[in-house]
Amino acid sequence: MPSFLAKLQHASPRALLEACLATIEAREPELHAFVALNPEGARAAADAATARRQAGRPLSPIDGLPIAVKDLIETADLPTRFGSAAFAHTPPPRRDAAPIMALRAAGAIILGKTVTTEFGVGGPGPTRNPHDPTRTPGGSSSGSGAAVGAGMVPVALGTQVGGSVLRPASFCGTIGLKPTYGALNRGQLSDQYSQNCLGILAADLSDLWAVAHEIAQRVGGDPGHIPFNAGPTPGFPHRPTTLAVLETAGWPIADESARSALHRQLDHLSARGVRLIDRASSPRVAHLETLIADAGDISTGINGWESLWPIGEIADRLPGKLHTRTEELLATGRALGLDGYITLLRRRDSLREALLALAPDIDACITLSAPGAAPIGIETTGNAVFNVPASALRCPAISLPLLEADGLPLGLQLIGFPNAERALGSIANWILESAV
Amino acid sequence: MPSFLAKLQHASPRALLEACLATIEAREPELHAFVALNPEGARAAADAATARRQAGRPLSPIDGLPIAVKDLIETADLPTRFGSAAFAHTPPPRRDAAPIMALRAAGAIILGKTVTTEFGVGGPGPTRNPHDPTRTPGGSSSGSGAAVGAGMVPVALGTQVGGSVLRPASFCGTIGLKPTYGALNRGQLSDQYSQNCLGILAADLSDLWAVAHEIAQRVGGDPGHIPFNAGPTPGFPHRPTTLAVLETAGWPIADESARSALHRQLDHLSARGVRLIDRASSPRVAHLETLIADAGDISTGINGWESLWPIGEIADRLPGKLHTRTEELLATGRALGLDGYITLLRRRDSLREALLALAPDIDACITLSAPGAAPIGIETTGNAVFNVPASALRCPAISLPLLEADGLPLGLQLIGFPNAERALGSIANWILESAV
Repeated sequence: MPSFLAKLQHASPRALLEACLATIEAREPELHAFVALNPEGARAAADAATARRQAGRPLSPIDGLPIAVKDLIETADLPTRFGSAAFAHTPPPRRDAAPIMALRAAGAIILGKTVTTEFGVGGPGPTRNPHDPTRTPGGSSSGSGAAVGAGMVPVALGTQVGGSVLRPASFCGTIGLKPTYGALNRGQLSDQYSQNCLGILAADLSDLWAVAHEIAQRVGGDPGHIPFNAGPTPGFPHRPTTLAVLETAGWPIADESARSALHRQLDHLSARGVRLIDRASSPRVAHLETLIADAGDISTGINGWESLWPIGEIADRLPGKLHTRTEELLATGRALGLDGYITLLRRRDSLREALLALAPDIDACITLSAPGAAPIGIETTGNAVFNVPASALRCPAISLPLLEADGLPLGLQLIGFPNAERALGSIANWILESAV
Repeated sequence: MPSFLAKLQHASPRALLEACLATIEAREPELHAFVALNPEGARAAADAATARRQAGRPLSPIDGLPIAVKDLIETADLPTRFGSAAFAHTPPPRRDAAPIMALRAAGAIILGKTVTTEFGVGGPGPTRNPHDPTRTPGGSSSGSGAAVGAGMVPVALGTQVGGSVLRPASFCGTIGLKPTYGALNRGQLSDQYSQNCLGILAADLSDLWAVAHEIAQRVGGDPGHIPFNAGPTPGFPHRPTTLAVLETAGWPIADESARSALHRQLDHLSARGVRLIDRASSPRVAHLETLIADAGDISTGINGWESLWPIGEIADRLPGKLHTRTEELLATGRALGLDGYITLLRRRDSLREALLALAPDIDACITLSAPGAAPIGIETTGNAVFNVPASALRCPAISLPLLEADGLPLGLQLIGFPNAERALGSIANWILESAV
């Protein structure tokens, strides 16, 4: 799909919004990507953007770009339910989360709120995969993945603690970016885990990059963190010298079709002159692999402790309202205790040290974004095993919709170094251009 | 004043609460420490604590301890107004902030909300100093300082971005703790600056310590940060080998009475065998002094950028509702921009590096908590020049009510190393015991 920003050179925001609304009308009854839509507000915003563009005074390059927002992120004009029955009848919060404030200031159009699992943790929602409605879109940014994958919006916001941006991106055939921890301001109510990142799903890398840039320019990252500062575009395509191929704990359970798809892409990269190293050829990669094999357990414990507030407060105040999976996470945190949590924080630090030790050797890591195509059924959102390492490393990761398994989309994942989104974007750009 | 926890060995929570309520009734009409009080809720909680203690099953050592809470911290049962006219008619948020959830679970009694300047930034409130009602109690934790200083409550929660815990502690004659950044969970709506800490004001060090401990045991620190883990008591009194005497940017404007009070205490410490080094005798201290001279400018810029959300969102949504000082802070942030912010973050990091370089040489730093006694009038809350360094260093600091200037309280400040609250508590304990 071509860049939405490129389309804005030739068509008005209002006309392009109407195309999005038409796609939503056609696909939403089957896909259930949205929990709330604001077509009239969006039309008014699109008309204002159209007028600004016609007058030659757009607020930013993304003035007039429609965007869908995961329902963990507060918006002043639409309710925020956090995917939870506990908030089914709550009046909407009266404020814009930090990225929403920034996007509105840049002229972006907040078109609707998308389905999330409960607090990004608990039970899945009703959303279906746009490429095969018998399958999950992934989670927890389920609706954001489906909305972009179906062409309802060019860009959507998600959040990722484990695999909640890269997995739906993989399953829905979109690009997904999970930035360095702290690099995009998460100011909002829920979901303040120490691995949680605001992420972006988009059909086009340039659109995605522009949205990240415009957010960071206005509200930066989380307080005290170096913000996303990788320029307004993904950067000139750059061929990496060396990539580390990671298996993660996911390789043994990856589908044969997924393994083949990755190998085909790796052979192609190799043929284009990219040096590939892996656990067999590099002791440093082997050390990193050994550590990230535990990323899932480490993350689950840390997330459990960090859910004691605010989710535990909700559980106390509204007993019986939370999903079983959310309650299980709370139980994990309570069982862990303070000392257990501190131990896990130190173990998590060691993962990042192992990655940083590879900085002299490699440009980035490369792996699958999921063990295969989206599973059949919507009772689960699939396995995050390939995504948790980048979350625990708190490093940037990008999923590119370059693979195919069983005739369905599958993501190719790149993991970069902290705050080095610019380098990662240039590599991603080159791989997109030169892929099979 | 003796430890409240010691009193609980001999009197019931209900009886001790009634003594607090009697003091509040006597002093509150003059001091205006509170914006909201919940005597009936507190009595019910005290009765429950009394019953648990009589049954030999207290929830924790602080079961039955009454506590006042700065009005930047959300409470499920009392409104939260952030000291701002913008929230004068807002319905109360429906949740307990992380430390409140923890304190209730430990049996502490949330007695009321205390006056703060607007968002901890803007104009001062009506609170007066309990030792001289013609004077300010300091800010922004104005009501928390006054409430503890007047004996209305044994402990109060505050927050500090610049000097908002240590300064009111100094002016009101209480102990104040600002922990390492991130060491006590700040989960709440407002005030998420990257220097902001949940702080504690108390008449007694053991009471203060127990409150910090019980919070950390239940909700830890901010997500991803090493929590306060310094034990349930301040630790055995420990004589420091070497202290670095800091002037900070405040020395040239400190009152003669404040300087004399500090020198008298330093002479006493020296006579007790503590080695004192300073900028004249130690190049490393001189280097730290040079850097922390800029702590005020660095902090103001960082706080300005970090106020763009959430305060900037409120300013946009409720124009004209914010105090001039709050608007000025926003203007500072807007003028700074993203690159300026990143530059200031890196400069701030250099302060901490200069302190860490002193770790082999010293046990802690020592200085005044304020340039003098509380100023006359309540139009300003006094000067934070002696407090900003510890805030920018993001290190723990304790103010001890050991000095006197013009017949009024003045704090002696100790600054420790990151996450080394246990060591700092032992030194504070020794200085309290051995002070002039």
